[in-house]
Amino acid sequence: MSLLTDFNQRQAVEVGQELHRFAAELYPICRSITGDGIRQTLAMIQDRLPLRIHEVPSGTGVFDWTVPKEWNIRDAFIKARDGQRVVDFQKSNLHVLNYSTPVHATMPLGELKPHLYTIPEHPDWIPYRTSYYKPDWGFCLSHNQLLALKDGEYEISIDSTLEDGHLTYGEHYLAGRSADEVLISCHACHPSLANDNLSGLAVATFLAGFLCGRELRYSYRFLFIPGTIGAITWLARNPEAVGRIRHGLVLTCIGDAGGFHYKKSRRGNAEIDQVVAHVLRHSGEPSEILEFSPYGYDERQYCSPGFNLPVGCLMRSVWERFPEYHTSADNLDFIRPAQLARALRVCTAILDVLENNRAYRSENPYCEPQLGRRGLYRSKDGGASREEMMARLWVLNFSDGKHSLLDIAERSGIFFPILSEAAHVLCQQELLSPLLSDDVVQATEKVSRALP
Amino acid sequence: MSLLTDFNQRQAVEVGQELHRFAAELYPICRSITGDGIRQTLAMIQDRLPLRIHEVPSGTGVFDWTVPKEWNIRDAFIKARDGQRVVDFQKSNLHVLNYSTPVHATMPLGELKPHLYTIPEHPDWIPYRTSYYKPDWGFCLSHNQLLALKDGEYEISIDSTLEDGHLTYGEHYLAGRSADEVLISCHACHPSLANDNLSGLAVATFLAGFLCGRELRYSYRFLFIPGTIGAITWLARNPEAVGRIRHGLVLTCIGDAGGFHYKKSRRGNAEIDQVVAHVLRHSGEPSEILEFSPYGYDERQYCSPGFNLPVGCLMRSVWERFPEYHTSADNLDFIRPAQLARALRVCTAILDVLENNRAYRSENPYCEPQLGRRGLYRSKDGGASREEMMARLWVLNFSDGKHSLLDIAERSGIFFPILSEAAHVLCQQELLSPLLSDDVVQATEKVSRALP
Amino acid sequence: MSLLTDFNQRQAVEVGQELHRFAAELYPICRSITGDGIRQTLAMIQDRLPLRIHEVPSGTGVFDWTVPKEWNIRDAFIKARDGQRVVDFQKSNLHVLNYSTPVHATMPLGELKPHLYTIPEHPDWIPYRTSYYKPDWGFCLSHNQLLALKDGEYEISIDSTLEDGHLTYGEHYLAGRSADEVLISCHACHPSLANDNLSGLAVATFLAGFLCGRELRYSYRFLFIPGTIGAITWLARNPEAVGRIRHGLVLTCIGDAGGFHYKKSRRGNAEIDQVVAHVLRHSGEPSEILEFSPYGYDERQYCSPGFNLPVGCLMRSVWERFPEYHTSADNLDFIRPAQLARALRVCTAILDVLENNRAYRSENPYCEPQLGRRGLYRSKDGGASREEMMARLWVLNFSDGKHSLLDIAERSGIFFPILSEAAHVLCQQELLSPLLSDDVVQATEKVSRALP
Repeated sequence: MSLLTDFNQRQAVEVGQELHRFAAELYPICRSITGDGIRQTLAMIQDRLPLRIHEVPSGTGVFDWTVPKEWNIRDAFIKARDGQRVVDFQKSNLHVLNYSTPVHATMPLGELKPHLYTIPEHPDWIPYRTSYYKPDWGFCLSHNQLLALKDGEYEISIDSTLEDGHLTYGEHYLAGRSADEVLISCHACHPSLANDNLSGLAVATFLAGFLCGRELRYSYRFLFIPGTIGAITWLARNPEAVGRIRHGLVLTCIGDAGGFHYKKSRRGNAEIDQVVAHVLRHSGEPSEILEFSPYGYDERQYCSPGFNLPVGCLMRSVWERFPEYHTSADNLDFIRPAQLARALRVCTAILDVLENNRAYRSENPYCEPQLGRRGLYRSKDGGASREEMMARLWVLNFSDGKHSLLDIAERSGIFFPILSEAAHVLCQQELLSPLLSDDVVQATEKVSRALP
Repeated sequence: MSLLTDFNQRQAVEVGQELHRFAAELYPICRSITGDGIRQTLAMIQDRLPLRIHEVPSGTGVFDWTVPKEWNIRDAFIKARDGQRVVDFQKSNLHVLNYSTPVHATMPLGELKPHLYTIPEHPDWIPYRTSYYKPDWGFCLSHNQLLALKDGEYEISIDSTLEDGHLTYGEHYLAGRSADEVLISCHACHPSLANDNLSGLAVATFLAGFLCGRELRYSYRFLFIPGTIGAITWLARNPEAVGRIRHGLVLTCIGDAGGFHYKKSRRGNAEIDQVVAHVLRHSGEPSEILEFSPYGYDERQYCSPGFNLPVGCLMRSVWERFPEYHTSADNLDFIRPAQLARALRVCTAILDVLENNRAYRSENPYCEPQLGRRGLYRSKDGGASREEMMARLWVLNFSDGKHSLLDIAERSGIFFPILSEAAHVLCQQELLSPLLSDDVVQATEKVSRALP
Repeated sequence: MSLLTDFNQRQAVEVGQELHRFAAELYPICRSITGDGIRQTLAMIQDRLPLRIHEVPSGTGVFDWTVPKEWNIRDAFIKARDGQRVVDFQKSNLHVLNYSTPVHATMPLGELKPHLYTIPEHPDWIPYRTSYYKPDWGFCLSHNQLLALKDGEYEISIDSTLEDGHLTYGEHYLAGRSADEVLISCHACHPSLANDNLSGLAVATFLAGFLCGRELRYSYRFLFIPGTIGAITWLARNPEAVGRIRHGLVLTCIGDAGGFHYKKSRRGNAEIDQVVAHVLRHSGEPSEILEFSPYGYDERQYCSPGFNLPVGCLMRSVWERFPEYHTSADNLDFIRPAQLARALRVCTAILDVLENNRAYRSENPYCEPQLGRRGLYRSKDGGASREEMMARLWVLNFSDGKHSLLDIAERSGIFFPILSEAAHVLCQQELLSPLLSDDVVQATEKVSRALP
């Protein structure tokens, strides 16, 4: 019944190593919002998961945007007069301004400099820069590399193509008892950046793998997409699926050493917001809840006012707030097996609550039922632990048709799975029954979903 | 008009001594949830108060429960080989596991030990233990007594009976102008425990005595009942009275040296919850408001979801949180005359607010009335104190039909009785009039009472 | 468009000096709630502002009050036997109990003393005292002056008149596009007190001057009135204008060295309350928001329950809380040019929000519009600052017909004028349009205004 109980039977150490290993396999690929890098990435996820790959032609209109030309790159360098590559794409794909137009020329350093990007505060790190929608070319290099460049002529080359082609994304769908969906979305468009992209891809892939073959309440949709334009493209092409989204999470930057951060959906009090806050409070790790703002990852699109979907964003460290963000220091050492494993566990706990949160009705609303004669009360010869007894009393007292299990969990301070188990035992004893048809919570959600 | 003003004319020292003396008279009796101990206790309350005694036969079904057999005990002991009573019921009625079945036997210490209860952390104290619903026998003793027992044979005897009989409880009803009721409930089923049972019984008895003969707004019902099964029995037998309960308090553990604790009703914002919080804030003693939880005293039953009555629980120290709880250290020294007297004063102040909380309408809603020419404004020759003037301004400004006096007290930070007096003076000057028929507050309460 | 931007183009130092100079011109006048002092004051305001002067006859009934007789004074003194004036109205008009009835007599010190007022804690300061509604006479003097008085006879003289006449107040009205009004009210009835009366008069006069000749959304009404009786008189005589008041501020004690204090309207969450809190939070000065209470300045009358107008009170130091209050120490040194100028700036910022707060609708509610191709997104070649970009994203995301610009300002933490500018730019780009007819906010306010 409980996803979390099942998950807890795994060896956390091994799970972490597997997650990290998968991230390491994906690391070398030069991804971008279109092109073969993301195709290759999706193929590697497909090895582990049934994945439907979509190809959307360049020029396709998606709301206010247009799918751009497809970008591919084979090589790039800055060569000194002695023929040595002083900046070399083969050493790091971050060295090229992502989406650079092709160029091959020789020019003095002074002319080259406006095309060079560095981080003076971190002189050993290479920045990550892009120019998707404005044709441009450039190189990113460490500040120390820049300082070492002597005046003179340099040969530069970017062997890229920017041509009509496709935008590619992957979609994994798992049908549950209900057509109502849970959306898990992560971006797959960053080159060799580990926390910002690979951590989310790995956790989402393993989460989907963990759900496969289970009997589930909700249907699940996992999106592996290029950031911004990918989310916009998917939203534009899937109006019906959009209408079925009941809860959603964007996963990103989830493998570093920091504590959890959850940025709430625009609604601010959607069930997913309550669920994540509850799970993080009981996660045993430091965590912080952030208010929604219209800046960040793809929750920006899911939470645009026309959709206003109940989709939040789960991270460890927050984009732009950690110095390694969008630099070569966001590498495979920056993400840690144990942190990835615990992130996967938190995601599992979140889905466990979503799957099991419903409202019950006490069959015995007048005074307490006599738990003692049913062996359900605390007793010296081990009838129940104090926590079990308290969970049962809470569930019985608040199962009045107006409180979901999650409401009771929040009010009592008891972790959801313990209350869920209490509800299970009380149902077996016919002291409790699930509310018919739809839950109170679902009704509430439907009303708020109807709002723009 | 003001209960509190009347009460304040009493000598607090004498009131405290009387309360403690009454508790001392009740102390030696071996009470249980049925039997002659509670009968004798009720008879002693009856000496001070008109009390209707109810006898409910064993075997009567009350919701999910059944009234148990009646328990009585005359003597009990553990006798060493030399004939000396090493554990003697005559020295303390706590020495017997309450509701022990009769036993007379001789057995070696090893066989006896599973029937012995002690508190190793407090080696001089005797624990209080019960086994109401599972037939069993046992002795409670100090840990030092246990350590002094040498191996060998012991004669044990519990001269008790557990037979068909009755459950006994007492009810004092005082009619007011309205049939709407205030419920005061306390348990009378614990043997020689002073704070946990006698403090509540004494304060409730004196509170009822103080109300006798007064012209009151509400009708008052005082219940002196065995814990849990007594509340369940009363609720099962009195559906009509239940429907008339407007406010209620469970009184317990109210005589010790600690500050006040008030556990809110399940509703969480019932008028009684607001009133007690207000009175405690102005009590001059430390106090804490606790959220409702479905564990504690008889508020568990009154606040079960089918009833959901506006009944909270007023205590000083909280059950299970003080080490003397359910031990022989909860004795007559543990409760103090001054603390009992102040508890009685707080209860009186609570009823004073309930009796006088209503909504008024200003007869002069446009600009302030000119209080000065009526001698109601602060002036150098003593027209009014600053506090009196402020109370009048607050009452006038917020008597718009939407604020009760208690609302105004909370908003202004002024103690209720001062606002109540201001309202009285303003009514005399025809600047204010009570709202007709029922108050806003009552209307609000009725709506929330209609909910399950 | 933006009042604040215009205001910021002024030289703050000069503005402060002008404000202080005007206060200094008004300082010597012996004002009271009626009489030539307030007439002369209004005439000096009239030199700077079109002002309609109203004269209301003594004896006129205004709600529960009656316009009193008119008071005028020419001279007053206490003369020692040697003919020297030991207390002299010509040196300070505070020396006379304001509204003293005429008296000319010789009496021993013992008989005089009950008519003398001092402040022993501040032996050099003269207190300010009044007796408007109870005929009386008296002198206010420093405690040191009192101590210096030797026993013996004194000649006393108060050359005043208290006769049928008029109550005088001034009204400046500025018509805007809407007949809905913003009320700015300040009292003009205190003699030589700088912070308490002149600071408000000066700031209000300059604020009105600043608005003159502008195209405005609201109509503005500035009242220069005697405290209490003046507000009551205006309210009694202007039922129609009262019904058009949408927002209001009482200005007082706004020139001293302290931080800002804003006392909320009785409604507690009126738009004016939100606006002032927002502006103060971004003012760069310490500030505190106070709850409404029915004691203070003329907000007492505007917020009496029959009117319940959305009128708060903006101050620096709070009446009665600073020792100089109602003493000769509240003089021209106690108010400071820079503080007056900053108070005027805050008032301007408040009106700027009121003028520009409205709700918009995004024309692009599904996903973000592509700001980059419109030059509205942050870019390395200066498309927009980060703050501008964030303001645009916030306005676009929350312009759903349910959030006003002020709501968005509060939610985002961005200062209103920056969001207002973002809305302006987005409207130009046709990404945003103002909601037709009336704004959401106005609708909300109208509902709450309809309440008693």
